[in-house]
Amino acid sequence: MIANLPRTITFICLTLSVSCPLYAQSVPPVFTSPEVRSDNTVIFRFFSKSAREVKLSTQIEKSPMAMTKDSLGVWSVVLGPAKPDIYPYHFIVDGTSVADPRNSATFPNEGFQSSLVEITGSSPLLHTLQDVPHGTVAYRYYRSPELGTRPVVVYTPPGYEQDTKAKFPVLYLLHGTTDTEETWTKVGRANIILDNLIAQGKAKPMIIVMPYGRAFPIVSKSSGSLRNWENLQEFKKDFLNDLIPFVEQNYRVKADKDNRAIAGFSGGGGETLYLGLNHPDLASWICGFAPGMLKEEFERNNAVAFADPAQTNKRLKLFWIGVGKDDFLFGVIQDYIELLKQKEIKHETFISDGGHTWMNCKLYLTTIAQKLFKP
Amino acid sequence: MIANLPRTITFICLTLSVSCPLYAQSVPPVFTSPEVRSDNTVIFRFFSKSAREVKLSTQIEKSPMAMTKDSLGVWSVVLGPAKPDIYPYHFIVDGTSVADPRNSATFPNEGFQSSLVEITGSSPLLHTLQDVPHGTVAYRYYRSPELGTRPVVVYTPPGYEQDTKAKFPVLYLLHGTTDTEETWTKVGRANIILDNLIAQGKAKPMIIVMPYGRAFPIVSKSSGSLRNWENLQEFKKDFLNDLIPFVEQNYRVKADKDNRAIAGFSGGGGETLYLGLNHPDLASWICGFAPGMLKEEFERNNAVAFADPAQTNKRLKLFWIGVGKDDFLFGVIQDYIELLKQKEIKHETFISDGGHTWMNCKLYLTTIAQKLFKP
Repeated sequence: MIANLPRTITFICLTLSVSCPLYAQSVPPVFTSPEVRSDNTVIFRFFSKSAREVKLSTQIEKSPMAMTKDSLGVWSVVLGPAKPDIYPYHFIVDGTSVADPRNSATFPNEGFQSSLVEITGSSPLLHTLQDVPHGTVAYRYYRSPELGTRPVVVYTPPGYEQDTKAKFPVLYLLHGTTDTEETWTKVGRANIILDNLIAQGKAKPMIIVMPYGRAFPIVSKSSGSLRNWENLQEFKKDFLNDLIPFVEQNYRVKADKDNRAIAGFSGGGGETLYLGLNHPDLASWICGFAPGMLKEEFERNNAVAFADPAQTNKRLKLFWIGVGKDDFLFGVIQDYIELLKQKEIKHETFISDGGHTWMNCKLYLTTIAQKLFKP
Repeated sequence: MIANLPRTITFICLTLSVSCPLYAQSVPPVFTSPEVRSDNTVIFRFFSKSAREVKLSTQIEKSPMAMTKDSLGVWSVVLGPAKPDIYPYHFIVDGTSVADPRNSATFPNEGFQSSLVEITGSSPLLHTLQDVPHGTVAYRYYRSPELGTRPVVVYTPPGYEQDTKAKFPVLYLLHGTTDTEETWTKVGRANIILDNLIAQGKAKPMIIVMPYGRAFPIVSKSSGSLRNWENLQEFKKDFLNDLIPFVEQNYRVKADKDNRAIAGFSGGGGETLYLGLNHPDLASWICGFAPGMLKEEFERNNAVAFADPAQTNKRLKLFWIGVGKDDFLFGVIQDYIELLKQKEIKHETFISDGGHTWMNCKLYLTTIAQKLFKP
């Protein structure tokens, strides 16, 4: 009944300032991790008396960094100074990946456990929580006849609740493969980025709808395989028949294609292009963030747009593709962009530094949020 | 830049059905964890080729269970049949605690990383997501002059957005030590429990306000110590001066003490009693769930209530204390209940099985939610 209670009790005893006779030997020392310092260096710490080797893996350094143990069993390493951003990281303890037990900022994902460190620097970034009016991030459920009760996270801009007449445009924002409906807010800071851009007058107030972007988890019990095309078909039905009606019935939205945008990262970028390019009435704004794609699927997944480029160009107000130079999808996305040129389909490209990361996701969202729903 | 990318890329490659030449050796086999079966047994799985020993720690079995490795490096163990509930669990990999990498249901906490498994059984429980009208769980920020921008999670009942005239009573619900503002929804399922109780006509529709229940994290950089009393003083200011005004300005609430309840678990239970018993105008409904307390602090922390028991009895509609027989706080809470009897302060007690767990938190919330705001 209380098998893993020592960890909890240890903390409660510490809080109550009572002694923990049963658990005295397991009481870890008091320490913070990560500790971000004003010079943009960070101390990471991990407690283990028994580990033989602990390393820190981040998306800042190319290789895991060795950590050293003090006499109390606290392993630590100093990183940086690092470029201000939010980075995923984890410890590697004798070969096993472990999220930071002292950090409640975690990376919502179905395939791994990671923690997040925010390195802010001397001036706030666009994803830094600032003293500006904040929108609301609502966790809702909607109903799909085929898939059951489905989670969705909905950002409404500052003032949405007060001005009960105003209607807003909607950005549908899809996460990457193995991410969840929480990843765009918790890792991508979509809500904070929009709060700040709206406060600065750089983005139009908009609603952002972040559904769970798969019909079923990537590894589902019933399948035993990944069924990517089948997932796309099932998710399309859910998106068009269940999600959009839920949003338009429950939020004050401008319900036409010129006031609908769709964007997504990685696997969700592939979904974005597939949904957006094949459904002319869906959205006039389509943005792929390092969109997942395969060359042999170009024709199939773009069939409607490719069949009538002139009509596609006429109806789309923005067709935007961003990718990092170090992204492992850079090559296939270049092939895709080349094909768009051949087909004479208008598009904007944004080639950034960096790889297939959520640091780039924040950059891409920041970029497109300033373009959406503007003449 | 891409130090921990292999885990991500592996999954993306799997999804895109492309080969991962660089990472071929690290591609884990396809498997699900946890796999809950219809007979309430559960298979837990963890992938590691290098670990020497992997165990499963749950709050079901008293001791960690040994797991065995197959030829692909997947460790597994079958647990149960278990009593239907939601249980925290983690793996112990060569002595290191690890949340389940294949499970995005995690336990929001500042002191450890755990995963959650829901064992539902043949009929839904009160915390099971069902096809009933759902309320909204909103992540908001409010401003404290002393503490800065503060997170709070607010549940509004089904229909709140539609009926723009109705006003609701409010339950302020505090988490335990090292928990966060998300723990009551993600582990305690407060929103789902209320959705179900409201659908069954067993609870009055209410708003539930779940703030981050500390002035500062339990282990804060600036302190190096735990400062429990100082935390209580700072949190009290924030609660009374910032949180309640934010709620009453931003939600349609009935803003009087008979329509305010306060409840909390463990450290948050101690805060609940301290706030509720010392502020006669705050709330007529006070509920402690295994409240954290020290015998030497009884007089100080209950000063106002103890000074005038008759007035306390007159003003309170419910003073409720729940605790499990196996809770490590059972003794001190019994001493406290004895003192309440001596002081002739009216109260209800609820002695359950089990220990200092979130299984009991759900039970206690389910119990008191059916009493609140009723004649």
